[in-house]
Amino acid sequence: MNSYGETLKITIFGQSHGPAIGVVIDGFPAGFTIDRDVLQRFLSRRAPGGASYATPRKEADLPEFIAGLADGKTCGAPITAIIRNTDTRSVDYSALRDVPRPSQADYSAFVKFHGQNDIAGSGQFSGRLTAPLCIAGGLCLQYLKQRGIAIGAHILSIGNADDITFDPVNPQISALTGDRPFVLNASAWDSMLAEIEAAKAKEDSVGGIIECAVTGVPAGYGSPMFAGIENRIAQIVFGIPAVKGLSFGSGFAGSRLHGSQNNDPYVMDGDTVRTKTNNHGGVLGGITTGMPILFQAAFKPTSSIGIEQDSVSLSRRENVKLTIEGRHDPCIVPRAVPAVEAAAAVAVCDILLGNQER
Amino acid sequence: MNSYGETLKITIFGQSHGPAIGVVIDGFPAGFTIDRDVLQRFLSRRAPGGASYATPRKEADLPEFIAGLADGKTCGAPITAIIRNTDTRSVDYSALRDVPRPSQADYSAFVKFHGQNDIAGSGQFSGRLTAPLCIAGGLCLQYLKQRGIAIGAHILSIGNADDITFDPVNPQISALTGDRPFVLNASAWDSMLAEIEAAKAKEDSVGGIIECAVTGVPAGYGSPMFAGIENRIAQIVFGIPAVKGLSFGSGFAGSRLHGSQNNDPYVMDGDTVRTKTNNHGGVLGGITTGMPILFQAAFKPTSSIGIEQDSVSLSRRENVKLTIEGRHDPCIVPRAVPAVEAAAAVAVCDILLGNQER
Amino acid sequence: MNSYGETLKITIFGQSHGPAIGVVIDGFPAGFTIDRDVLQRFLSRRAPGGASYATPRKEADLPEFIAGLADGKTCGAPITAIIRNTDTRSVDYSALRDVPRPSQADYSAFVKFHGQNDIAGSGQFSGRLTAPLCIAGGLCLQYLKQRGIAIGAHILSIGNADDITFDPVNPQISALTGDRPFVLNASAWDSMLAEIEAAKAKEDSVGGIIECAVTGVPAGYGSPMFAGIENRIAQIVFGIPAVKGLSFGSGFAGSRLHGSQNNDPYVMDGDTVRTKTNNHGGVLGGITTGMPILFQAAFKPTSSIGIEQDSVSLSRRENVKLTIEGRHDPCIVPRAVPAVEAAAAVAVCDILLGNQER
Amino acid sequence: MNSYGETLKITIFGQSHGPAIGVVIDGFPAGFTIDRDVLQRFLSRRAPGGASYATPRKEADLPEFIAGLADGKTCGAPITAIIRNTDTRSVDYSALRDVPRPSQADYSAFVKFHGQNDIAGSGQFSGRLTAPLCIAGGLCLQYLKQRGIAIGAHILSIGNADDITFDPVNPQISALTGDRPFVLNASAWDSMLAEIEAAKAKEDSVGGIIECAVTGVPAGYGSPMFAGIENRIAQIVFGIPAVKGLSFGSGFAGSRLHGSQNNDPYVMDGDTVRTKTNNHGGVLGGITTGMPILFQAAFKPTSSIGIEQDSVSLSRRENVKLTIEGRHDPCIVPRAVPAVEAAAAVAVCDILLGNQER
Repeated sequence: MNSYGETLKITIFGQSHGPAIGVVIDGFPAGFTIDRDVLQRFLSRRAPGGASYATPRKEADLPEFIAGLADGKTCGAPITAIIRNTDTRSVDYSALRDVPRPSQADYSAFVKFHGQNDIAGSGQFSGRLTAPLCIAGGLCLQYLKQRGIAIGAHILSIGNADDITFDPVNPQISALTGDRPFVLNASAWDSMLAEIEAAKAKEDSVGGIIECAVTGVPAGYGSPMFAGIENRIAQIVFGIPAVKGLSFGSGFAGSRLHGSQNNDPYVMDGDTVRTKTNNHGGVLGGITTGMPILFQAAFKPTSSIGIEQDSVSLSRRENVKLTIEGRHDPCIVPRAVPAVEAAAAVAVCDILLGNQER
Repeated sequence: MNSYGETLKITIFGQSHGPAIGVVIDGFPAGFTIDRDVLQRFLSRRAPGGASYATPRKEADLPEFIAGLADGKTCGAPITAIIRNTDTRSVDYSALRDVPRPSQADYSAFVKFHGQNDIAGSGQFSGRLTAPLCIAGGLCLQYLKQRGIAIGAHILSIGNADDITFDPVNPQISALTGDRPFVLNASAWDSMLAEIEAAKAKEDSVGGIIECAVTGVPAGYGSPMFAGIENRIAQIVFGIPAVKGLSFGSGFAGSRLHGSQNNDPYVMDGDTVRTKTNNHGGVLGGITTGMPILFQAAFKPTSSIGIEQDSVSLSRRENVKLTIEGRHDPCIVPRAVPAVEAAAAVAVCDILLGNQER
Repeated sequence: MNSYGETLKITIFGQSHGPAIGVVIDGFPAGFTIDRDVLQRFLSRRAPGGASYATPRKEADLPEFIAGLADGKTCGAPITAIIRNTDTRSVDYSALRDVPRPSQADYSAFVKFHGQNDIAGSGQFSGRLTAPLCIAGGLCLQYLKQRGIAIGAHILSIGNADDITFDPVNPQISALTGDRPFVLNASAWDSMLAEIEAAKAKEDSVGGIIECAVTGVPAGYGSPMFAGIENRIAQIVFGIPAVKGLSFGSGFAGSRLHGSQNNDPYVMDGDTVRTKTNNHGGVLGGITTGMPILFQAAFKPTSSIGIEQDSVSLSRRENVKLTIEGRHDPCIVPRAVPAVEAAAAVAVCDILLGNQER
Repeated sequence: MNSYGETLKITIFGQSHGPAIGVVIDGFPAGFTIDRDVLQRFLSRRAPGGASYATPRKEADLPEFIAGLADGKTCGAPITAIIRNTDTRSVDYSALRDVPRPSQADYSAFVKFHGQNDIAGSGQFSGRLTAPLCIAGGLCLQYLKQRGIAIGAHILSIGNADDITFDPVNPQISALTGDRPFVLNASAWDSMLAEIEAAKAKEDSVGGIIECAVTGVPAGYGSPMFAGIENRIAQIVFGIPAVKGLSFGSGFAGSRLHGSQNNDPYVMDGDTVRTKTNNHGGVLGGITTGMPILFQAAFKPTSSIGIEQDSVSLSRRENVKLTIEGRHDPCIVPRAVPAVEAAAAVAVCDILLGNQER
């Protein structure tokens, strides 16, 4: 299903080349004034914008709010925003129904939907569907900011080019200006861009990792077992196309360590309980500790590449060669940064709003 | 919340040192005969069993089915099984309420539950709660087996000692006998045990990674976006205590690759569509491809260590030293293997049973 | 929240005088061709259409499908349809924020949303929101028809004017032509209209009861306890504005009877098990018996009346007199008939699609 | 499914003649001391207790809390209570599998569960399952009392014998002592008992209506559309066996009225907004108004009667005569009173705890 959340519930709809994409946001607090300029700047971060690593498709991504506002403020009714698709070229994709593109959802969707799925531009599986996620996330970011919560993500790696990591105890969110490139160490971007250009030159693609930090969430939010902070962030982050891995705090690297190395000792900071280190990524037992929430999401390389690949004809049941035409991103990681922030914002906002009277 | 699943819904309850732990399993097919011996052997895999790496706590873990059966078969009513706790020693833990153990849920739970949480044996956060998960998973495994689905997990690493990986295209599930050690390469276990013994000797602990494979799930199961196979497996796997990372297929390593390396070409295998490689881990667009589902879960080192640690007194708001007494596992990874299999089984069973008429 | 359903999930959005109203329908089968003419005729049943008992507001109610279709068929992606609001007159309602209209949601919404709710035309509480419900229900009706399921509703009473009831064993759904008036006994409509005209003449309003029948649902659908047929129909029917009562089969009257009168004896009908009578309304233990599902929904009289009423000033905390201006229906029951059918269709469709593999 | 609730989630399990029945209560506030005596008195209200109208089956209904408590208080972990079944006589019911009892769930459950359902004592469909509902409701009643919320129900009618109704504006909850008979007008009970005895003398049964009031819920709780107070109360009340109708406030009778008669004018009561009358039953637009929540639930006559009835043999597909042996209640209405109160308490508690930060 295309919904996420308990108290704040978002429902995303649309296909890459359909009439429109959009989102319904139910449960958002009433009386909130959306800063449309701030929202638009946030949305523009995922726009291709002529970057060498992005699709040449042009979409203004101007959301129209068709429900949920009254007198310019949220009114408690479900907020609905849509973006009309304009630069669509269905003709590019029509031949693909019979020959699934490797590592796209073409084949799995073909089976699930009996060949009825919208194939144009990958239909509902398109990365374009992160635009409505960013609308929802953009609203949540504005709301969370009022409550003292900041969220920021940067590109931790592209291929084998690495940025520095966040300081787990004091992540440098404010160092992220909101403008590209989304890295902490500006010089890391040069190596990353070189990775992308090298892949692009071969009509190939490359993957990467995005790291995200959330600060300002008080201790005591979340739940044990299946509704913990990690479970809920995981449920939304794995909804971003191309994510194949997720870790919190020291994650996979931490599994190599001893307890004495990975444990985070407590220390008083004035009257506040903090940890000296933050290998736990801000969450213990599914519940926040008050330390920054930290996670890393691994993105596979873009599946659409220009290089000839092996595939099959679903109708003729035989092996064929496939060369993919059409526009695509050699690396979707830079454009995925706001999607990761948006996902985190929606998850955190849902958790905060759903925090029962205790 | 302590429930998981849509069509097959499990609810886990109990605390480490309370009267009993257990699980309600709602939505399991009627008319199924549970093989109690097979279930018991599965449960015994997570029992400490005198292993050097495990807690000396002894629990028989004999489930009593108090609901859901009639004439020895499931009857469509919710199945409820409980395990009485016997070898409880609350006295070991009473001093810990004021001084939270680093990287345990003590502090976050203290805040959430206003100091009312059950601290004995970590209460509801105890790894002991994986026993009811294994009851539910054990049932699901038996049901899935009848439908041609096999699930197996092995220890991929402990500390820096690595097993070989599954063959992603034909994972060696049948090589896992169900008996310890849970590795593919028997000699890897020696290095792993050495890692555990080294940690134990220092009253320290060590983490590890578990890899799991699911074979036999046909193509076309799952959903796009937030209810995909990855999202749903993530939601339950992050419910296993100590899991801090999760990846599918080539996961984080795949993010370093080019599309031409990571993409999985299609090929006809008789009349069946398969992929030559399986970097996608059996899931594309949240939907199964018919290839084995493959994932890796990272476990942090056991938080309870005997070494003195820094902590704070919550009542006195001052820094203190903490030395943890009581029984604990220097490495929980071996005992977590069946929990990972159980989690996968519940998730897959829920997805299969919830597959709508199409 | 504004969502309903498990396997087929609908999310309704919009306010009476906002830019648009609409619905997201997630989980609808792929490959279905919507008959737009049939849908439009269904929607037109709830349009005011110049009837003397209806608001003079004019809305074409032409849905635009902005997502979920490909090549004219459903494609498995969430279906989204919107209707632009055109004949809006916010000016009529602006004075009402301070003085709540009796028996409208003005006051309860004011408190819940801190005075930020959209008051124009009752905002999200408007009966106009049954239009998107009818879009969803209209689709479901078309789908159910293909599966041999028919749904029909008629006006059982308006004020003290009564129609005959459905024959519980063979409800006369086919006698309902789909055109007004929605009664089984045409002459009953004269008395009903007289009730409405009498109320209207006094600037008053009148309520009524709608009876609905669903035929063709096989035995064995539904669930015990909290997810039974009655529970699920109740959850959606109480979502229609002004519904204050719901009963199944012999309902409240049956509570006056003896078991020997109210029980429905079984009888073989060829090879089919049927009941001779149908006081149970097609549902026992939350599960269908294969007999027609029958229910009755009570609608209170329209709250908006032209007669002066007592109310209060929320700002001045004093008693005031209120005379409501603006357009309204002296009786919403005739226009609610398709909404009841739509609600039943969505509920039944969700139950059918969610029927697990057994 | 056998779960109810969003923030406070209850899961009920067990069959009439299985080893045990019970409930998991997840989301209940931590640190609450359960008054076991008060709970036991509440549970004893639904016990047969030797009353002439009740089954001679004897069950002590002593719940054992096997999870969720620490040091005698709730600890935030899911609360689980079980009641062992003792006075079971499966032999009474074994012949019924082939010949379904009219208006019981025998046939519908047979089809749904492929003949595997537990038939003994009606299995999971037994009224006995209201005992765990009353455990959950009893806890909620204690919690709600601390927050100033009172809930009481009385028998409005049995057959054609009627009690007086609650004063909708000031319901006489305190007049209900908690002891039998559960009526406002003591003399009404004589007529009710006569109705029961008359039915019993003929080995017949009789139905009735229960009215319930909830006072002390502030205005502004609930939600529009599908998650309103009425929808949520309906979802749980229709989970009580034998309920076939539900109405709020003036309900079905109100549908006969004019708006000028049924509308509830507002009036200031000191600084508090109230309504002069309460035909709306405390809920408008799915949201509380601060007035008492009032509803009526119609119970069909007990399906199990001693009179010979027509039925069919499911195996032989032919008509047969059926005479039901075994214990049963000629009227379940008196014993259902605490179940209705419990259902209301769980629903209100869930709504209150789920009330988001606003």
